[in-house]
Amino acid sequence: MNTFGNNYRLTTFGESHGTAIGGIIDGCPAGIEADTAFIQSELNRRRPGQSALTTSRNEPDTVEFLSGLYEGRTTGTPIAFLVRNRDQHSKDYDAMRDLYRPSHADYTYQMKYGIRDPRGGGRSSARTTIAQCVGGAMAKLALQPEGITVRAYTSQVGRIRLDGTYRDYDLTLTETNPVRCPDARKAAEMETLIRRVKEQGDTVGGVITGVITGVPVGLGEPVFGKLHAALGAAMLGINAVKGFDYGDGFDAPLYLGSEHNDTFCNDHGRIATRTNYSGGIQGGISNGEDIYFRVAFKAVATLLREQQTVDRDGRETIINAKGRHDPCVLPRAVPLVEAMAAMTMLDYLLLMKSR
Amino acid sequence: MNTFGNNYRLTTFGESHGTAIGGIIDGCPAGIEADTAFIQSELNRRRPGQSALTTSRNEPDTVEFLSGLYEGRTTGTPIAFLVRNRDQHSKDYDAMRDLYRPSHADYTYQMKYGIRDPRGGGRSSARTTIAQCVGGAMAKLALQPEGITVRAYTSQVGRIRLDGTYRDYDLTLTETNPVRCPDARKAAEMETLIRRVKEQGDTVGGVITGVITGVPVGLGEPVFGKLHAALGAAMLGINAVKGFDYGDGFDAPLYLGSEHNDTFCNDHGRIATRTNYSGGIQGGISNGEDIYFRVAFKAVATLLREQQTVDRDGRETIINAKGRHDPCVLPRAVPLVEAMAAMTMLDYLLLMKSR
Amino acid sequence: MNTFGNNYRLTTFGESHGTAIGGIIDGCPAGIEADTAFIQSELNRRRPGQSALTTSRNEPDTVEFLSGLYEGRTTGTPIAFLVRNRDQHSKDYDAMRDLYRPSHADYTYQMKYGIRDPRGGGRSSARTTIAQCVGGAMAKLALQPEGITVRAYTSQVGRIRLDGTYRDYDLTLTETNPVRCPDARKAAEMETLIRRVKEQGDTVGGVITGVITGVPVGLGEPVFGKLHAALGAAMLGINAVKGFDYGDGFDAPLYLGSEHNDTFCNDHGRIATRTNYSGGIQGGISNGEDIYFRVAFKAVATLLREQQTVDRDGRETIINAKGRHDPCVLPRAVPLVEAMAAMTMLDYLLLMKSR
Amino acid sequence: MNTFGNNYRLTTFGESHGTAIGGIIDGCPAGIEADTAFIQSELNRRRPGQSALTTSRNEPDTVEFLSGLYEGRTTGTPIAFLVRNRDQHSKDYDAMRDLYRPSHADYTYQMKYGIRDPRGGGRSSARTTIAQCVGGAMAKLALQPEGITVRAYTSQVGRIRLDGTYRDYDLTLTETNPVRCPDARKAAEMETLIRRVKEQGDTVGGVITGVITGVPVGLGEPVFGKLHAALGAAMLGINAVKGFDYGDGFDAPLYLGSEHNDTFCNDHGRIATRTNYSGGIQGGISNGEDIYFRVAFKAVATLLREQQTVDRDGRETIINAKGRHDPCVLPRAVPLVEAMAAMTMLDYLLLMKSR
Repeated sequence: MNTFGNNYRLTTFGESHGTAIGGIIDGCPAGIEADTAFIQSELNRRRPGQSALTTSRNEPDTVEFLSGLYEGRTTGTPIAFLVRNRDQHSKDYDAMRDLYRPSHADYTYQMKYGIRDPRGGGRSSARTTIAQCVGGAMAKLALQPEGITVRAYTSQVGRIRLDGTYRDYDLTLTETNPVRCPDARKAAEMETLIRRVKEQGDTVGGVITGVITGVPVGLGEPVFGKLHAALGAAMLGINAVKGFDYGDGFDAPLYLGSEHNDTFCNDHGRIATRTNYSGGIQGGISNGEDIYFRVAFKAVATLLREQQTVDRDGRETIINAKGRHDPCVLPRAVPLVEAMAAMTMLDYLLLMKSR
Repeated sequence: MNTFGNNYRLTTFGESHGTAIGGIIDGCPAGIEADTAFIQSELNRRRPGQSALTTSRNEPDTVEFLSGLYEGRTTGTPIAFLVRNRDQHSKDYDAMRDLYRPSHADYTYQMKYGIRDPRGGGRSSARTTIAQCVGGAMAKLALQPEGITVRAYTSQVGRIRLDGTYRDYDLTLTETNPVRCPDARKAAEMETLIRRVKEQGDTVGGVITGVITGVPVGLGEPVFGKLHAALGAAMLGINAVKGFDYGDGFDAPLYLGSEHNDTFCNDHGRIATRTNYSGGIQGGISNGEDIYFRVAFKAVATLLREQQTVDRDGRETIINAKGRHDPCVLPRAVPLVEAMAAMTMLDYLLLMKSR
Repeated sequence: MNTFGNNYRLTTFGESHGTAIGGIIDGCPAGIEADTAFIQSELNRRRPGQSALTTSRNEPDTVEFLSGLYEGRTTGTPIAFLVRNRDQHSKDYDAMRDLYRPSHADYTYQMKYGIRDPRGGGRSSARTTIAQCVGGAMAKLALQPEGITVRAYTSQVGRIRLDGTYRDYDLTLTETNPVRCPDARKAAEMETLIRRVKEQGDTVGGVITGVITGVPVGLGEPVFGKLHAALGAAMLGINAVKGFDYGDGFDAPLYLGSEHNDTFCNDHGRIATRTNYSGGIQGGISNGEDIYFRVAFKAVATLLREQQTVDRDGRETIINAKGRHDPCVLPRAVPLVEAMAAMTMLDYLLLMKSR
Repeated sequence: MNTFGNNYRLTTFGESHGTAIGGIIDGCPAGIEADTAFIQSELNRRRPGQSALTTSRNEPDTVEFLSGLYEGRTTGTPIAFLVRNRDQHSKDYDAMRDLYRPSHADYTYQMKYGIRDPRGGGRSSARTTIAQCVGGAMAKLALQPEGITVRAYTSQVGRIRLDGTYRDYDLTLTETNPVRCPDARKAAEMETLIRRVKEQGDTVGGVITGVITGVPVGLGEPVFGKLHAALGAAMLGINAVKGFDYGDGFDAPLYLGSEHNDTFCNDHGRIATRTNYSGGIQGGISNGEDIYFRVAFKAVATLLREQQTVDRDGRETIINAKGRHDPCVLPRAVPLVEAMAAMTMLDYLLLMKSR
């Protein structure tokens, strides 16, 4: 339903044009310093209107905490928070009330529930991921003393892609450009592409790469709760995501077992692997090497151009969305990928401690 | 842990060289005809030794049902089943007791639990998927009256891949060759490759494509329980799987929104989409079109050749596995992909009925 | 953790002196009329300060809905709500910051979490049950079209108890007196007792009886999810509850099987039982008869008198609480018992529909 | 459904006259010595036919373990086990196939599932609790190194009840008589009563008291997962149980707050309570004192005498059960109460470690 995780749990609520977006974090360890400035800064990374590349919906998105904190620290009780919606243009959606926008969730929601909030996509809006960003920021704070870090970056937009792996880039450069790509030259190309697509009222997708370092050995469950299955489910829960792989992923079939088995070695007393095609996970359990993975995003469905569709009665018609749109979701999805990964890691870290 | 699903639940047990492999199915609707011959036939599809392409471990793998059936029908109570292990060569593993096989789960299990059953990979053995195949076969029986069918086939082995999509093939041909590929010519190429790799004691991976038809509109939960996220988690739980995508997946970034939005039309009274890049799922919820997805497998880790590794004390050494190995897991993984998909679909179908 | 239910789920948050109390309802069927005036009226039944019998903390406790409703109806998405705290006297608790109040949760929270919000009992305050009352009120609205009603009343305060069973009273009279007891004479006695106890800065417990009518046959799971086990767990989750029984409960041992077996009869075409010692549940599953149960409450722990205790360092000392206290929790717990029962019934009703 | 617990999980299967009864234990810590002789001895305590007081169904009930153990220790993987059914007299039930036995689950199962296994009560038979006893025995083994012990005893049969609390008896005497009552004189009275009831083909209920010692501070979750709510749900899941209370339970209303608040003291450096009306739990969390509770059992429904009932078509008729019956379930339920309590405690102990 609307709860993510088992030990560290985030339950979210909110629609694009409702009163507020928010959630409840349950299971956060007690005694963590709740650095609300850091949490707000993480939220700012997904804020609309932060650059010319994203939607022009402009909201401060200030998070308010309602519970679970005392004298600046977590108490082990549920941490509720909310962000009020402010800059809704609900009128924009009146004309689309009875139309199904192509590749949106309008049709499936209507059929599933018999009712839907049509304003701005309602519950299916990417705006609802505010809650995940807050949950993820808190998870990052809890992972910090454990030495686990989570980073993501845009590695492909349209056909423009980075050639190297995450080891070839300085990931601290990710935040230095609006695309959130650590290769400045490619970032510029991507930016040009996104601007051009935006002018056409069109959209473009891409790939985000995630990297998790400092992982202890032993996170993950052997059969159905494999660590990469949990990461995959987390990523596939993000709007517009079409695929997930980890380690050498969809390239793995190109290599024989003898070519990509990760042989073990003794690295100054630590058991390590010479290569890391496994992506830091073996048999579903972390082996202490870096975890890295890819998340494929389609171009988002909202176009500022005419499209064919049907209305609620099945009559074929033309839909012509107006107003604002997000030409490329990737820059704003980078913090979201980090958030989902951070929550997954904390969830499994707490699970491991119960054994 | 070792339970899959929420409404239709499979809990599994067993190690490669333990007494038995099996599971408990909970939540299966009452009154379903338990066609045990069909279930056994599904199990036979994953049986070792069924062709020269697989491991020569030779077991009848006869399933015994212990509960939950009465006069040939399900009663709504838990359905327990087991398959006894017979052809273990546990002695083969004595030499490897204190060694960590590269890219296997030996090291991670040892670190996680402080103890492991080293015989045949113990719990991490692919043999344990017997339980999933039985659970999936029962799910297929429950899906049949609903008109939902699940099919899978080998679409790539090594660098040999099918050029077309699932619509270009007659999927009933899948079972006509040992590779389980519906294109006879490609199947022959794949078979040659697998035989060559086997002779070298090496292994090779590939891709399995899954297709689900007859899906009602409305399966899937909006945020964290998206239908494709559940399918992805199910597939990523299969041994040796490195990636999952659905619809146009990792190719989605290559298209603009205007190129791959699936516009709606009225198809003789039914609301349908003209194209299906979405892969039958929009906003996480099935839209009534075919669901299709890909699952990437690495080459399995067990090689019949020397490899470098370390022992439990971190001393670098050589491991030299002997005995039997499975040069390509894909043919036997085809029924497993179907099983996991069938269980996922039934799980969500039951969930939808609760609303 | 802080989530109740599986299909109809309430996740709650909030501390006595925090910013707000609230929750998220997930799984509420779509299309239910969200009669917010009714929900507020249910909340008013648990409001402090509604009579001389309860705490004098005086709060309007106005509920604000943040999501999940559209044009007055539920949409199937999460329904978030909150009630802001207003009349906190946090200063009252400064002196007790490092003391453990006897029979309160101060000590256990401190030991479990290493930190606690000492103001007004923090998370362990009965004030947090606001969230349950809202969740229960919404559940009542969803149960209404199904014909299921849930009622509760005070059947014992101290040693004053009703002699008859629920069938002997007109339960619509429950709200006619501040004790919420349908027997006016006993209610007056109870009221006198509570006033006297209040004057002494003391507290008194009692028993609440719950009755559920209009229940369809088939709610409940056979083994661990028996309907009465779920009701019991729900009731035992209420602050100050010490026991739960249903049907003839703790009196059952006094009868032989031949005396209290409920024989079946044909009641004008409906299969019914002649007696109902079973309390409407057989084998954990509802049989269509009325469900009735008892909930035992201890006297609440907050006394306005001196008590012995220890401080955080284990030094023995005297604690002397000042300010406000609730001499008898039962009147305000009546709507809470109803709320928990309503949520349980809806949870199981949705589960049954999934089969 | 058929799974108990969250961190230590038991999933059970089996019907009275099916092939076998058994289960899967998931989440058992690795490295525990699996003393199978102890587990079998626990199972023997619930075995039918062990004394003249119980049913004469005579089965060795030998447990077979199928997985999860290696060289005598748990490995952290699922532990599957089964007990084959042997002494079924299925013929005895042919006549009752279409009749609903009063106060049994025949009617509710038939209505819920539309099908049921009528032989010996099918899934609703007390025989299925074999699985709980094995799960509980394993939990006891895991609790042993933690110093937590769980004991239960018969404290009431019919109107014969023990006058004292658990502190007044030597609980090691419980196993010295077939009633499992630590007071020899009362045990003899109870035994006489049970024999007399048996001769009449009748049945009698009673109360079992449970005691848990050596509990660390901090087990239990504040709101919905209170430790006593979990214990209560566990006990209410046992067949024929009608009520649960803990601490002073249903007697609590008889005391004012000033009379039964448990004041804290310093007991040689340990913070303790002078009294323990709370039953070792405050605010839902263990406080380190003994936990004690009562479980009320009705007389079991199977009588060897004529009773009125209806058949599947609603026709009123007479049912006349023949064969074997259990005049008083309490002696055999004592190990079951211990088993459920042990599993609950281990479940919460593991949960606490995850924080």
